[in-house]
Formats: sequence, structure tokens, C-alpha cells
Amino acid sequence: MKPIRILLAITFAGLTTITQAQDPLASWNDGPAKQAIVDFVKATTESGGAKFVPPAERIATFDQDGTLWVEHPMYSQVMYCLERVPELVKAKPELAKVAPFGTVLELLHGDRAAMEKLTLPDLEKIAMAALSGMSVEGFKTEVKTWLEDSAHPRWKRAYTELTYQPMQEVLKYLRANGYKTYIVTGGGQDFVRVYAAIVYGVPPEQVVGTAGATKYGYDKDGKPFLTKEPKMLLNDNDAGKPEGIHLMIGRRPYAAFGNSDGDQQMLEYTKAGSGARLAMLVLHDDAKREYAYGPAQGLPDTKVGTFTQALYDEAKKDGWIVISMKNDWKQIFAFEEN
Amino acid sequence: MKPIRILLAITFAGLTTITQAQDPLASWNDGPAKQAIVDFVKATTESGGAKFVPPAERIATFDQDGTLWVEHPMYSQVMYCLERVPELVKAKPELAKVAPFGTVLELLHGDRAAMEKLTLPDLEKIAMAALSGMSVEGFKTEVKTWLEDSAHPRWKRAYTELTYQPMQEVLKYLRANGYKTYIVTGGGQDFVRVYAAIVYGVPPEQVVGTAGATKYGYDKDGKPFLTKEPKMLLNDNDAGKPEGIHLMIGRRPYAAFGNSDGDQQMLEYTKAGSGARLAMLVLHDDAKREYAYGPAQGLPDTKVGTFTQALYDEAKKDGWIVISMKNDWKQIFAFEEN
Repeated sequence: MKPIRILLAITFAGLTTITQAQDPLASWNDGPAKQAIVDFVKATTESGGAKFVPPAERIATFDQDGTLWVEHPMYSQVMYCLERVPELVKAKPELAKVAPFGTVLELLHGDRAAMEKLTLPDLEKIAMAALSGMSVEGFKTEVKTWLEDSAHPRWKRAYTELTYQPMQEVLKYLRANGYKTYIVTGGGQDFVRVYAAIVYGVPPEQVVGTAGATKYGYDKDGKPFLTKEPKMLLNDNDAGKPEGIHLMIGRRPYAAFGNSDGDQQMLEYTKAGSGARLAMLVLHDDAKREYAYGPAQGLPDTKVGTFTQALYDEAKKDGWIVISMKNDWKQIFAFEEN
Repeated sequence: MKPIRILLAITFAGLTTITQAQDPLASWNDGPAKQAIVDFVKATTESGGAKFVPPAERIATFDQDGTLWVEHPMYSQVMYCLERVPELVKAKPELAKVAPFGTVLELLHGDRAAMEKLTLPDLEKIAMAALSGMSVEGFKTEVKTWLEDSAHPRWKRAYTELTYQPMQEVLKYLRANGYKTYIVTGGGQDFVRVYAAIVYGVPPEQVVGTAGATKYGYDKDGKPFLTKEPKMLLNDNDAGKPEGIHLMIGRRPYAAFGNSDGDQQMLEYTKAGSGARLAMLVLHDDAKREYAYGPAQGLPDTKVGTFTQALYDEAKKDGWIVISMKNDWKQIFAFEEN
């Protein structure tokens, strides 16, 4: 690098720092959504204010898929499960002849139409096989490897790069103001914990998700280990979200963020608390920069991350804030050129 | 207060502060137990050392009953359940004629022999009735009131005063060195969470315990609330402790403290990790200042907080440290005169 370019680089780096220090929500356009976040933080952290929240009680919960990162065309964890099938078949060759495993093999060999054949019970069967039976350490290694090797079909980038820059800013902004940030996901708790610290700065103990039982045992040398069992302990969707929050956190959040019907009860539970409470929903209304789906507000209907008109109406009625991805977000991904 | 006494009080307060600053484990006698704690902290926090543990990974777990506070003659939560029976009978008078509820009424009316009649299934039936069916907020209020109104039969003090001063020092010492301290108790998670922050400085989200399901619903005004259900999600004893640690924390502890057979697997799991790991067991061998029970080392046998010889032998074999309450603790309770 030439000296003049180094100088320029330093200057720009300095400018970036200054800009960020001035506006912690730099990727947000001015508007009611951004304002609601700023007002909430101000109200709950202003010492002596009527709505002040003691630091120990500052809890904020975030759904993951569709709220913190891209969930279309398919949840990344479902892709993981499907792409594990060849390994599962390698370990148990007789599976190749059994539905739905045979169907998934066709799918992975390029027959996209095979996807249509997969039913929800099929997916559950595949998920059970891909997500249980191994040690918790073994699972962690498998997920890590997959994340490094796989890419999103549209952007050809690792799934872990497809997080929403505006939401990353909210996470950091809340933490800078004493909030403990939790992920409360319908996805697998063990799955999301593998990358949550690196991708979001959220440590494993602050990830609440759909969780299965584990079983304590010993290997041949007497060393203890935990095996992932095919038994559900917590289905962290819908009513399971406030139930999971009570189980794992034991406090009602002051702020909650979601994007689909599965987040409804978490937001209701959050707003039912006293004082200032913030409930926000990301509406995917940006077909160009990301995806557009609802079916709220006449957006295309979808089975992945459904946001119904009923949820939209509840939000408007109860003072939740709907974030328009198209209008409220200046930038969506960190890798975009500004 | 006379000026001279004020002066003395200030002087003594000053001296206490100085002494504590010099020795964070002031209630411990010098010896291998105290030394093991100090060595462990030094090894895992010394920057650049071979056994250095990054702050984010510093997790320490503590059993509660018998490890952090008195569990004899009976676990405080069992006393809570028994003493709830009159209220339960008041709400459902027909219960008075039903075993074991009638037996508990006799017991509470002073017939101590009735205690002998209670079987484990009886206690479970009572616990289910006393610990489920109400809202999580209602339960919290009931426990709080009970803790304020009840007293330990021997010391005539609130249960919350009967914590071990040496263990309170360990909690503070570890936290001062960047450790996140967790309670991992066989007791009820919701029960212990009511007082853990005030009594131990451990927030609700760092209490892992035996946990039941909750059910999300709405009251007549449409306000959501959670009801405690008579369905066990996690039995946080024995193998349930490492399983609960994985579920709720998702990291292997670097240090674990217990006092009975129910803590065996938690300590095994902790010691099975790499690097420096500390596993400690409190042995109740002090009949005079507290209680003496084992049956390890020929101490009286007990059903409450059983510490078998097999556990003692495993500890000695695997490098766990057994704390002798009699020899290692200079002072047991904060309220004792020094």
C-alpha cells in the first residue's frame, strides 16, 4: 500500500469511528422505528426517571431466523439437516431406500422438485436423525464444519454473514446501555449456540431455543459425556417462547424483537410488564434487497416466517412497532457497499 | 450513640474492610482446601499462564442445600411445602380427610411422630400440590412471605440467614476474579430464584434447579400470564445436574461445589474438562457448630444430604477436595461472634 493510500485509509477509518460514535443506529433511516428504540433506551436508563430500569433487570430478547438473519428460502438449520442426510445414509446404508431419506438424496442430487414431496413429518424425522444420537461435543464440531463449508444459494456467502446490520446495531446499542441480550429462537438451542457468540456477541448461556434432552454417560475409559437424545424438552415457538424465557431467564424482558407469528406470545408477554416495554416486529417487505413475504399487508404468503395480517393488526392495536425493512433500513448487510 | 462509640465503630468498620481486602477467604483456616481455591483462581486468571481461562468461559457452579446453606434437619423447601398444607386444605377442605394431607395437619399441630408416617410418594404428592397450579408471580409472593415469616427450628433465625460464610466468600472471590457464579440445585428453580439474588448475589438467570413446565394463558382482561404446571421438565439431581448445566448454561464449569451424592455427576463432568478444574465437597463433620452426617468417614447416616463413603473414595481418587466443616472453616455463619 502506498503511503497516500495508507493515509486515506486511516482517515476513513477515523471518520467511520466518529460516525458510529455519533449514531449507534447508523444503518437505520430516521423514522418511528428508529425513534422508538432510542426513546426506549433513554427512558429505561435515565437515572431518576419514572421508567428507569435497574441494570440487573435489563433483559432484551431477539428471535433469530428472520429477525437477526435471513431465513429464506429456507431456515439454515433445515438446510443443515438435509445436508447431513448423506452422512446419515453412509452410517446406515439401509436408510437410502427409506422415505424421506431417499427423497432428500434426490433433492441434494439436484432434483429440486423432490423438495415439494417433503412433508412436515418428513422434516421432523430427518431433524431427529440429524440432531440427536451424537455427543454434544460431536454435534458442535459437525455444525461448525458445516457453517464453514456451506453458503446461501442467493448471496453465495456463509449463512453467518447474512445477519442484518441494523439489528446488529440494536444488539450492541442495548448492550452498551446495560442490557443483557438474549436470543430466543424456535431453532435448536445447541445449533444456534455454536455461532451466537462469534456472530452476535451473545454467549451460549444467553441462547434460549428449542431444546432436546441429553443423557449423561461414560465412555470406555470412564470419561463422562452427554448424548443428544431424540426427546423434546422445550418447543421454543409460540407460547413456548414466554415459557422458555421463564425457564431459562426467569425474568420478563423489557424489549423483544421478532418477525413472525411464532413471536406473538413473546411480544405479548413482554408488553404485559409494567413501565416502558418495547415490542418490535421486522416486516420483510423488500423483495429487491432481501425478500418480501407476509401474508400481512398483501405481501406474498409463505410457510417460512409467516407474518399474518392478524399479527400485524395486534401489533398496531397494542403499540408494537412494525419495522419496514424497505423503509426503515438504510443498509441491510454489512457487506453491502454504502 | 456517643461520639467515642461512633469513633470506635468507624475504626472497627475500617479494620474489617482492611482485613477482608487482605484475605478474601477470611473465614477459612489455612489448609489444603483454602489453598486449592486460591491456587485454582491464580492458575486460571494469570494472563499468559498455561492454565489461563478467558473471562467469558469462567463458570463456577454451586449446589445449594448443604453446600451454601443449612439443609438439616430438613430441606427448607420441604418445610415450605408442609407449611403450605393448611392453605391448600383451606382452599379444598375435602383434602383434610385425605392422606397425606391429614397427616401433615397432625404434624403441624405438634405431633412430630406424624413425620415418620410420611413416605417419599407422600412428599411428592404434597410438593406437586404446593408447587403447581398457581401463577409464577403468585408463587413468588407466597415464597417471599413464607421466608419472611418462618424460622429454622434450631437457630430461630430466617433460613436466609443460615448461609455458610466461607462459601459466601468463595462466591464473592470467584466473581471478583471474573467468574460467573451459578447455583445448580436439586431444589426448585423457581423457589431458589426468589431469594438467590439477595442472599447470594446470584441473579435468577444464574439459578439452575429442578424445574417444572409452565403454561401460557390469558386472564379475563386478556393479560397474559404463566401458570406452574404439575409436569417435571428437569430433575436437577445426579445425572440431571450436568444435563441441566448443558441445557441452561451450555458450557462446562471450571469449578463445582457440592456436598452429597446428588452432586457426584456435576463434579465428574467438571473435572473431565481440560486445564485446571476445581471440584469440592463440603463434609458435614461438625456436630457442635452445625451438624454431623455422612455416612462417609463413619459419620451418622442420613437421608437428607447423604454423603456416602463411595463418594468420599471417588473424591480422594480423582483429586476432588473434601472440605471439613470442622477443620477448614474458622467461622460458619455471619451472625456468629468471632
